[in-house]
Formats: sequence, structure tokens, C-alpha cells
Amino acid sequence: MNFDSTPVLPHGFRCASRNVGLKPVAKDLALFVSDVDCAAAVLFTRNQFPGAPVLLGRETIKGGVLRAVIVNSKVSNVATGEAGLQFARRMAAGAAAEVGTDARKVLVSSTGVIGVALPIEKIEAGMRGMAADLQADPMPGAHGIMTTDTHPKVLSVRVGQATITWIAKGAGMIEPNMATMLAYIFTDATFDAPTLDGMLRRAADVSFNMLSIDTDTSTSDTCALLANGMAGPTDPASFEAALVAGCIRMAEIIARDGEGAKHLIKVRARGAKSVGEARTIAKSVVNSPLVKTMVAGADPNVGRLLMAIGKCFDVTIDRSKTDAWINGHQVVAGGVRGAFDDDVVRKALGNEVVTIEVALGVGTGDATAFGCDLTQGYIDENAAYYSS
Amino acid sequence: MNFDSTPVLPHGFRCASRNVGLKPVAKDLALFVSDVDCAAAVLFTRNQFPGAPVLLGRETIKGGVLRAVIVNSKVSNVATGEAGLQFARRMAAGAAAEVGTDARKVLVSSTGVIGVALPIEKIEAGMRGMAADLQADPMPGAHGIMTTDTHPKVLSVRVGQATITWIAKGAGMIEPNMATMLAYIFTDATFDAPTLDGMLRRAADVSFNMLSIDTDTSTSDTCALLANGMAGPTDPASFEAALVAGCIRMAEIIARDGEGAKHLIKVRARGAKSVGEARTIAKSVVNSPLVKTMVAGADPNVGRLLMAIGKCFDVTIDRSKTDAWINGHQVVAGGVRGAFDDDVVRKALGNEVVTIEVALGVGTGDATAFGCDLTQGYIDENAAYYSS
Repeated sequence: MNFDSTPVLPHGFRCASRNVGLKPVAKDLALFVSDVDCAAAVLFTRNQFPGAPVLLGRETIKGGVLRAVIVNSKVSNVATGEAGLQFARRMAAGAAAEVGTDARKVLVSSTGVIGVALPIEKIEAGMRGMAADLQADPMPGAHGIMTTDTHPKVLSVRVGQATITWIAKGAGMIEPNMATMLAYIFTDATFDAPTLDGMLRRAADVSFNMLSIDTDTSTSDTCALLANGMAGPTDPASFEAALVAGCIRMAEIIARDGEGAKHLIKVRARGAKSVGEARTIAKSVVNSPLVKTMVAGADPNVGRLLMAIGKCFDVTIDRSKTDAWINGHQVVAGGVRGAFDDDVVRKALGNEVVTIEVALGVGTGDATAFGCDLTQGYIDENAAYYSS
Repeated sequence: MNFDSTPVLPHGFRCASRNVGLKPVAKDLALFVSDVDCAAAVLFTRNQFPGAPVLLGRETIKGGVLRAVIVNSKVSNVATGEAGLQFARRMAAGAAAEVGTDARKVLVSSTGVIGVALPIEKIEAGMRGMAADLQADPMPGAHGIMTTDTHPKVLSVRVGQATITWIAKGAGMIEPNMATMLAYIFTDATFDAPTLDGMLRRAADVSFNMLSIDTDTSTSDTCALLANGMAGPTDPASFEAALVAGCIRMAEIIARDGEGAKHLIKVRARGAKSVGEARTIAKSVVNSPLVKTMVAGADPNVGRLLMAIGKCFDVTIDRSKTDAWINGHQVVAGGVRGAFDDDVVRKALGNEVVTIEVALGVGTGDATAFGCDLTQGYIDENAAYYSS
């Protein structure tokens, strides 16, 4: 898939961002708007303490139509009770007034610290006049949703006459289940909401739902797909292939920028008894703290791969058929440590992208998980996130 | 439970340890012997890549009789194939010859790096004459089984005329399932093997099986209970109560000494729909990297507790009934952040022991999990474990 070297927004989409005083200086409010109504699908976190914006969003998306997305960072509006829900509604109403639409067509997201009251007055005041800032460049929006991300995350690609653009944020508290932290996907292709929903679920299933920074599932995860139809009909198969490719690429970008991460770790499990078992094994390896620290230290302690496979108690393992490779170098053969050169594997583990492949030899199940290494940076970010 | 201020071994048990050249200087081989045959029960790891000593131990314990335990550290003899199993048998035979028993009455354990050949000649040579070193003091044995532990781990307690003594090692790769890393429990009480097995399973279920340093389940976990009967019959209820209390205390000691840990974290979930759901929630909270770093940094970011509860997708949660406390200070009330003083909670999080209590309000399920905070020390230990 050839992503644009300079990402763009599809026809009819514009965005803006501002500092409205939630953070000292950085942008903390982003607005995304389509010139016309969009068919839309949204996936939300499965966490049982979803934020107020998620509770509201589940109502909003029932109509299958969105016109705008408003996102603040710094405060997630989670565990804030009935007042939090009121504030989320006020945020939608403010954005709707600003862009001239109905609040029921505005998706609200908030990301940041949990359990702190949303400074709604600052957001309402800061939002006023924001429509005048809207531009066709995706970067202001991508900057506006960042929290501990080290860079804005944008991709775009062409499919026939249409464009698909991904704008996301990641970094920590990421083991999504039905979506990543925050990912907005805009397209000018024409599809109805149920079709978008099916495509988005299938794409998330092999990308954001296979992404884990730290096994912690955020209370705010939201992944939205908005199609405004301005480029007309697009071949569904080509569109879905591009959607899947972009979601996987964005999952890799988020994993690589995991808090404190120095490496992207991709773990493919193949030859498993089922796709479900392949997913379980790939996730277990990518989430193992001892595998993550092995990569961080480029330490060829490859027995840990077997530990992380073997701790999946309920999957089918035939020890004598289990093989594993690190960046193409075989390190496990028939369930036993292979005869490899430590220095070669140490060097492979030093690559920015470390691909671990596990072959189970018991079926055809195949899945890939995306994660990162575990370093002091993660602890630094998270030992004082609230206080700083 | 009043544990002895200076731990002792029960009547008829002795131990010794030596450096046999697996490590540069520290003790790396430990031998535990009873003067007479013991009724015994052993729990092993559920990891699907168990070490050779675990495979052998499952055979050995079928007889329900043990006379000795031989343990080496530094190399775990895991993922070593048929040769590894032969080496484990040779280790049992060597110990049996040394103490004058049958190899089928010797439990073998190995702990350390995975996937490296066991230096069996060094062990066989180093074991010779070790019977002469045996003494009634538990400390040589406790020192002999340490790997990254910062201190030897021994407890003893009196029950009527009998004594129970726990000798364990912990530190990393610890989320046992049926046992902790290595824990040997010796008693001079009289019980048959099936009785010991039932007692040990029940005790492990609320202690070692609720312990997690890092979610990684070792391939070598072994927990053995040996009863030589030299103190005669003991009241079973009193014995089991003491056994449970000691296993819980040892789980706490191991958690507190988790690699890099500065805090013991205890998480009690009560009012859950079932004990199983309480266990799931307590484990989720104690294992959450974001909860662990919150404790490491004494950062009162208590919304993370709700995140860690809520990511248990399949348990019954009534958000409005969910409360939580940190060392007695209420931080969540009715699913919403409580009105607490940040500084008070920050101070509570600074305690060496941080007890988190979660009340679900939907049933009577109650469980407690044991863990530790996540610091740079964990990463330092594990980013170069193989190479150093």
C-alpha cells in the first residue's frame, strides 16, 4: 500500500485545533468537520467503566450519521458521573453550534486523566470562533489530539477517486478491544453506515484489536469511520483492502510510539489450531514483560518465547512441532532452543522493528499482534502522570 | 499467626548448599533431606513448556513419597529436549546416592535461564560429599536456591508439637498457576500424601496462585509439601490454618521482593458475583502496569483502578455500586472518583505495603491478590538476564 508522502484530508473534510487552557501551551482541543453529512460507524472500548463521551457516543452513532468530531485531550471525562455526561452533551452542543449542525451528529471524545472534572467552561469558551480556523490540512487535527504521543499520527491513501485518511493518537493504556485509543478515519468514498460498520469491525479486528502497549484497556477507546460521499462510489473490495492496510499501518505506528518504546515488536503466530488460538499466542508473546525487556536489552534470551507461548494454558501446543524465528533467524526448533549464534540474534534484536514468528505446526490459524518494548521511559511517563 | 523470629527446620530435616561452579561465587546447589521417608504432595507449573525437572517430578510424585530435594539455580533445564530429561535423572540419581535412598524419592528442581544445557558434570562432581554438610539450620538451603532474590526466604511456625517450615525463592517470571516459582514446605507432622495434596492445593489457591510479579508464568514453578511424621499426629484443622497463613505470608514476601519492587501491593476484591470473578478483578488490578507505576510513583491517579476493574469484560459490574479504598482512604464511591485529599492518598501510596480494596456490591465473592510495583529495577534485571 502506497501511503501519501504528505498526508491530506479527503474532499470536504477540514480540521482545526487550539489551546483552550487545559494544557499550559500545547493544543488540547481538535475539531473535525465534513461539509456535508457523513454515513458513519464507530467502535468503542469494551471497558466496563467507559467515559461519558463513550456513553454519549453510543447514543449518537445509532443514527449512523456524523457531521463533526470534537476531541479534547488532558482530561478524559471518565468516572465523572451524571455531571460528566452533561458536560459531554454541552461539548457536542457547542461544536454543533459552531459548525451549524445538530448535536446528534457530533461525536465527542475526551482523552487524558481519569476521574477529574472536565473544565467545560474553558472548552465552551475556547471553541467559539473555531470554525474560522478550519483547514484542509490534517496536521492541526492530528496535533490537537496528542497526549503522551511523541509525534502526530496521520496517514492517507488513494483508492480510485477516493481518499482515506487516518488520524490517531496512542501511547499508553492501550490494549483496545473494539478500537484503539482514538482513531478517526475520514473518506470521501460513498458507503452506507451498515457497510462501513462491517468494514470497520473487520479492519479493527486485525489491527487495533491486535495492538497492545501495556495490556491496559482504556476507558475512552474510540475508532470512527466517516464517509461523506463527495468522491462518489468506490469499489468496495479495493476500499476495504486499503482500509485494512491503513489500520494495520496505524497500529504499527502507535505501537512503535508506545510510551518509552524504542522498538516495534510484531509477533506472528501461524500453524495454530485456530485463528483464535493464534491471536491468543501472538498477544501473549507481544505482552510478556520478559519478552519486552529482552527486546529492550537486545538480550537473546529466547527461552522466554517458549515461556510466553506455554503460559497460554488452553491452546493446543505440540512441543516437538514448535519453531520460532527472530527477524528471520531460527531460535527455536522442535520446542528446543535452536543452534544459533548469540551475536547474530543480539544484532537482530537491535533493529527498530523486531518481528517474532512462531510456527505451531498444529493447524492453519494465523494472526499477528503489534506491541513494543518495555523501558524506563514507560515508568517515567506513568509514575507521575496525574501529578505532573 | 506467630512465625518464629529465628526460623528452624522441623525435626528430622536437614539441608546444605554449595557453589559448584554454575555461578561465579554464590551458592548454586541446595540439598534438603529428611532422616526418614516423607509423605509428600507437589504442585507444578501449568506452563505448556515445563522444564525437564517438572516432567521428571510429575513421575516422581506419583509414589507420594519423598526423601530429598535437590535444587540448582542459574540454569533451569527448560527447552533442552531429551538430553535435559536425562540430566535431570542424573541429578536425582546423584542426590540419591549421596543421601542413601532411591532416585524415585528425590525431587529435582532447576531455576535460571531457559534453553541452556545443564552443566551436569559440575553438578555431579559438586554434589559429592554434600551429605556431610547437612545441618538443621534452614538458611543454607534458602541461600542455595536464590536467583535474583535480594534475600533468602524462610518462615517457620509451630502447630501443637509439630513445626512447618517454608523455604522459597521468587523474584521474576512469576504468575504461578498451581505453584510459585520454587517453594518447599517441610513438616514433622503426620499426614498421608492425599491429605497433604488437598491441603496444599487449597493453600496454594489463596496464596501462590494469587501472586503475580509480572504476569509471566515460569516453566519451572514447583511447590512441594513434605511431612516426615517425626512429631506425630497433629490436629488437621490447626495444621491447615497454619499452612494457609504461612503460604499467604510467603506469597507476600515473594511479591515484596519482586524484581525491582519497592512496594508490596495487596488487592482485595469483595462483593463480587463469585469468588472466581473476585479473583479475576483482584488479579487485573494487581497486574495492571498503570496501577503498578501509580504505586511506584505514589501518584494518586486512582481512575486507573476503575480502568483495571473495567477491563475485566466478562465479570458483573454495577458501576453505581463500585467503591474502592487505598490503605483505608476511600478513593472511589459509586463508580466515581471520591472526594479525597490528594496529599493524603499520595502519602498512603508511599507506604511499603499498599492495600487496595475494591467493593463490587453485587455478591459475596471475595479474593485477595499479591503483587508489587513496576520500577526501573525490573527492566534492569531483565534486559540483560541472559547476557550477564
